[in-house]
Amino acid sequence: MKILVTGFDPFGDDVINPAIEAVKKLPDTIDGVEIIKLEIPTVFYKSADVVKEKIEKEHPDYVLNIGQAGGRYELTPERVAINVDDARIADNEGQQPIDKPIKEDGDPAYFSQLPIKAMVDYMKKENIPASVSNSAGTFVCNHIMYQTLYLAMTQFPDIKAGFMHIPFLPEQVVERPNTPAMALDDIVKGITAALKAIIAFDGKEDLETIGGKTH
Amino acid sequence: MKILVTGFDPFGDDVINPAIEAVKKLPDTIDGVEIIKLEIPTVFYKSADVVKEKIEKEHPDYVLNIGQAGGRYELTPERVAINVDDARIADNEGQQPIDKPIKEDGDPAYFSQLPIKAMVDYMKKENIPASVSNSAGTFVCNHIMYQTLYLAMTQFPDIKAGFMHIPFLPEQVVERPNTPAMALDDIVKGITAALKAIIAFDGKEDLETIGGKTH
Amino acid sequence: MKILVTGFDPFGDDVINPAIEAVKKLPDTIDGVEIIKLEIPTVFYKSADVVKEKIEKEHPDYVLNIGQAGGRYELTPERVAINVDDARIADNEGQQPIDKPIKEDGDPAYFSQLPIKAMVDYMKKENIPASVSNSAGTFVCNHIMYQTLYLAMTQFPDIKAGFMHIPFLPEQVVERPNTPAMALDDIVKGITAALKAIIAFDGKEDLETIGGKTH
Amino acid sequence: MKILVTGFDPFGDDVINPAIEAVKKLPDTIDGVEIIKLEIPTVFYKSADVVKEKIEKEHPDYVLNIGQAGGRYELTPERVAINVDDARIADNEGQQPIDKPIKEDGDPAYFSQLPIKAMVDYMKKENIPASVSNSAGTFVCNHIMYQTLYLAMTQFPDIKAGFMHIPFLPEQVVERPNTPAMALDDIVKGITAALKAIIAFDGKEDLETIGGKTH
Repeated sequence: MKILVTGFDPFGDDVINPAIEAVKKLPDTIDGVEIIKLEIPTVFYKSADVVKEKIEKEHPDYVLNIGQAGGRYELTPERVAINVDDARIADNEGQQPIDKPIKEDGDPAYFSQLPIKAMVDYMKKENIPASVSNSAGTFVCNHIMYQTLYLAMTQFPDIKAGFMHIPFLPEQVVERPNTPAMALDDIVKGITAALKAIIAFDGKEDLETIGGKTH
Repeated sequence: MKILVTGFDPFGDDVINPAIEAVKKLPDTIDGVEIIKLEIPTVFYKSADVVKEKIEKEHPDYVLNIGQAGGRYELTPERVAINVDDARIADNEGQQPIDKPIKEDGDPAYFSQLPIKAMVDYMKKENIPASVSNSAGTFVCNHIMYQTLYLAMTQFPDIKAGFMHIPFLPEQVVERPNTPAMALDDIVKGITAALKAIIAFDGKEDLETIGGKTH
Repeated sequence: MKILVTGFDPFGDDVINPAIEAVKKLPDTIDGVEIIKLEIPTVFYKSADVVKEKIEKEHPDYVLNIGQAGGRYELTPERVAINVDDARIADNEGQQPIDKPIKEDGDPAYFSQLPIKAMVDYMKKENIPASVSNSAGTFVCNHIMYQTLYLAMTQFPDIKAGFMHIPFLPEQVVERPNTPAMALDDIVKGITAALKAIIAFDGKEDLETIGGKTH
Repeated sequence: MKILVTGFDPFGDDVINPAIEAVKKLPDTIDGVEIIKLEIPTVFYKSADVVKEKIEKEHPDYVLNIGQAGGRYELTPERVAINVDDARIADNEGQQPIDKPIKEDGDPAYFSQLPIKAMVDYMKKENIPASVSNSAGTFVCNHIMYQTLYLAMTQFPDIKAGFMHIPFLPEQVVERPNTPAMALDDIVKGITAALKAIIAFDGKEDLETIGGKTH
């Protein structure tokens, strides 16, 4: 079995992106499964081209995209990606789409194909704060999650895909008062635990644990 | 023109729900448009039956469902409803579905048919804090948004529907330290401004303003 | 009996200060007690001169200074003022003292002479979120609390003094996402309840209720 | 030179206290200065007895007390300790004083004798989020800071003392959603940097940097 894990390069005001930093530190195999690591650009559409190219080359069984969600406290597997780009800031090539569909022929949304409840469970058992998120936002993170799921649904039916957001690193919040952060080692530990969950639940139903929102 | 505005009854630990309290205080007409008010139960499926019945009786042009999102700071028109129930607590009839689709034959998600950016714009111009939200949660609020949009898409093509979340009232946070709240009068003022936006943008495209998330 | 209530004028990036706005809307008498209202400048030392002048003219029994604490969720009677000015921004006359004592001959701190626990109790009974705060900051709010208590301790032994912080107004947070606010009417209602507590506890010990912090 | 660093044992609902965990992991010498480590009980008065006994035995030049402030994002050297115990929960021996002075003959407050601005500066340069705090609370943390400064002022004039609060560990927030945490290694790195600042500023004035609050 083979899992492709991607991480974005830095964007906005940050010179570092914990996503690619954490992905680079993952082990090369987890529980006997090969982990393929890929840096992708924080750019609408181009990020998807890079992922697609790697899928064609490596034929992974799973794709887990990782992205930064500054301001979050926990590692958050995303439940769903929606068919819209709505950028608050420009991406790394200056594109700033407002309320545009990602794929004219795509579904309104795609649900994660990963066992998100089990991923949360495995991470918490490793003492890493984690919870299910119901929104991947509307920037390049949601975009790549949607695009990868679109690819899985339309061109690569043997692949299962999904996305996880991670918090800022401590060094990113030194000048951002009252903003949560997580140490890189803990992020790596959490992603590793999430990958173990994906491997352990291969071919099985996700856990039926409580993890929704009260509204 | 006629707009149906619904509000939930109290649920969980609360004896009051600002949604129905605010809906009850709306004027009967706004800019010449009749406002129909409806209290609905915080119950999966039954809430949708009550809305459907009222639609059949009143033939509104728009439906705006209102619900409480405890912990939010602003009035938040929802962008999208997703086809899943995942309850953290039981609803008012003891149902607590975990990761169940709402409609087996429904789309994965339905986007709001309301001008959410214009609604935010109108509310902020009235000095009411507001922003677009990208998740209506996974409890009865997302459920009724999904169900009403499903009805609009499948049975009532002349109707446009959507949902808006509102914060706690001050009295609800007296024993919840460091939790944001909004005065009932301001919530009513905000909903009224949002309804004015719906009326003003009838037959037009939504505003193309920045309102996405940076991740 | 007579109570002097002061409110600061706007400072920093804000064109309005809820402190003086709320003070202006207080009734002229509460439970038979005369309420004297005074706008004071957000300026180190000069604010104290204005308060002292008014005390000499009006001979109040109590002085309650009111100031804005942007970012707080509740009305917060302050427990203590400390003998230091440490300004993050300049005051309204360009002064920005760093770690300077307010009064060379003053105590390191003065505790509020007002019944802060009873004030919180009265406000919560009116459904206004409130709690005791243990820091008035290090800007002009702490300064005027310290100065007024210094005056009470050294020159006006018949006066009892204290300070209360109040949150932003909704209109101040329209462009400050995820920042708590309170409606002006609720702030006025809360200050009025706090004044009723001061009047009711005149000559008595404060309530012995739980209101500390767990660290 | 010798520095005594103390850390509290667990209290409340927690089975671990990051304070003593971090203190235990400090090096035995920093920049040639001996670091004496001491676990102290989360108990009013008894904690002070334990500190006094160790001071009499070890004759340190500095005392830095470390305590947990659950909910804070940063390492926070405290500016001031106030002469009051006001406990929200019972200490580890069941005592819960409400609004009681710590020392009848003590000052209303004692300011930290440590270079708190330099400590913040050194920690931030190591990429550890840090800021000055103006309240050590009203529980055992403020108590031990006050008591140690009282000892320094009254019995041990050669000692300089002060306190620093630290956040929860990640494992403590796994079941506390949306609560900030800091990895133990980063807390240790931060305390070490703060101790280096204390050593480097021995006999010197503190930095005059901006670090106050805007209210």
